[in-house]
Amino acid sequence: MSLLTFQARKALTEAEVIIGYSTYLELIQPLLEGKETVSSGMMKEVDRAKKAVELALQGKKVVVVSSGDPGVYGMAGLVMEIALPLGVQIEVIPGVTAANAAAAVLGAPLMHDFAVVSLSDLLTPWELIEKRLQAAGAGDYIVVLYNPASKKRKKQIKRAKEILLLYREPKTPVGIVKNLYREGQEVIISDLENMLEQDIDMFTTVVVGNSQTYPMGDQLITPRGYHLQT
Amino acid sequence: MSLLTFQARKALTEAEVIIGYSTYLELIQPLLEGKETVSSGMMKEVDRAKKAVELALQGKKVVVVSSGDPGVYGMAGLVMEIALPLGVQIEVIPGVTAANAAAAVLGAPLMHDFAVVSLSDLLTPWELIEKRLQAAGAGDYIVVLYNPASKKRKKQIKRAKEILLLYREPKTPVGIVKNLYREGQEVIISDLENMLEQDIDMFTTVVVGNSQTYPMGDQLITPRGYHLQT
Repeated sequence: MSLLTFQARKALTEAEVIIGYSTYLELIQPLLEGKETVSSGMMKEVDRAKKAVELALQGKKVVVVSSGDPGVYGMAGLVMEIALPLGVQIEVIPGVTAANAAAAVLGAPLMHDFAVVSLSDLLTPWELIEKRLQAAGAGDYIVVLYNPASKKRKKQIKRAKEILLLYREPKTPVGIVKNLYREGQEVIISDLENMLEQDIDMFTTVVVGNSQTYPMGDQLITPRGYHLQT
Repeated sequence: MSLLTFQARKALTEAEVIIGYSTYLELIQPLLEGKETVSSGMMKEVDRAKKAVELALQGKKVVVVSSGDPGVYGMAGLVMEIALPLGVQIEVIPGVTAANAAAAVLGAPLMHDFAVVSLSDLLTPWELIEKRLQAAGAGDYIVVLYNPASKKRKKQIKRAKEILLLYREPKTPVGIVKNLYREGQEVIISDLENMLEQDIDMFTTVVVGNSQTYPMGDQLITPRGYHLQT
């Protein structure tokens, strides 16, 4: 809850109905009091979006909750795709996405150009994801990996490592954050060569440094390029 | 101020000294009451960071303010580079960076993999920036351009357009946001071919869609890939 913005809290306070994946609604439990809520399980995004639009068409003020930023792999696009053709008005409220939150607990790895890539091939052809990893490698981008793995899905993160190793040194620093900004948060500094020794799952965010990123103690820094000589 | 998180507000409340670029301090004026403040002009980042560390070494609780997210082209890295070798403890508090805030006012353009690139070649060789633009084009990333232009610096955004046009259709949607989340905010939907007709300056954030991004009314949507048939 500490990353909730004032704008987001205001929207929740003014809402008549709050809709979200049940795990996310639990995270904002204190704000749900006296509200109508609609929660549903994972993978029910389309149902949730349709329900939200249906209730809005009945004249209700509805808030759809995503974790992080709803505009980054969240519910914003889906709700808009359904709502706009029906003339339902939408306001997207930005939030702190995992890339930025993970960067903060890792120190300052995102001080230079970065690419955000989801390794989930549920909705995206794997060939396109590989193409993006190749491009991020070639462009010396800092790379933030969302949905790096799940219980059943382990090969994508292995392949991502292989691809980035074509462009970067084995010792390139990698930051791994589990349960980011949640109970049991864990921050690990590893490197490209050894990153798979960590247990990477769907509650993990992975930040791969660019050629300039370096570790300092338990933090990662990508220098922006200021001259620090006195 | 509406994008301030609870965590950020708490840090400001507990601070003894608040340091920042004068324009940013003005934006949080109500929170400065009763605090020691140190403000300075643009381009004085190194001085501000050194001052912050100096005061922290005297035992003061210091907050350094950036706009957006201090971890994205902000002050986080610089302060850490100076502070960590001296044993000064740092906490980075993430925020909503311009990419996410601009995406929200544009609709939902960042629903798929995206790259964030600064066009300022003050601290970064232009060749590297071109390489990153080429990579973003080749990888079909949505591209968010920070520092796209200034009064004196106009050729970088022209070149960025040329490079992205090597990979994308002239009609690729481009979202242009001026004075994002500030007084006088302006949101313009253009396309790659015509984007330079707009007055793009240092208070502008530019979002170039990927091959799937489409405009709907005055909003941009990049579909994530859900099947919406009923």
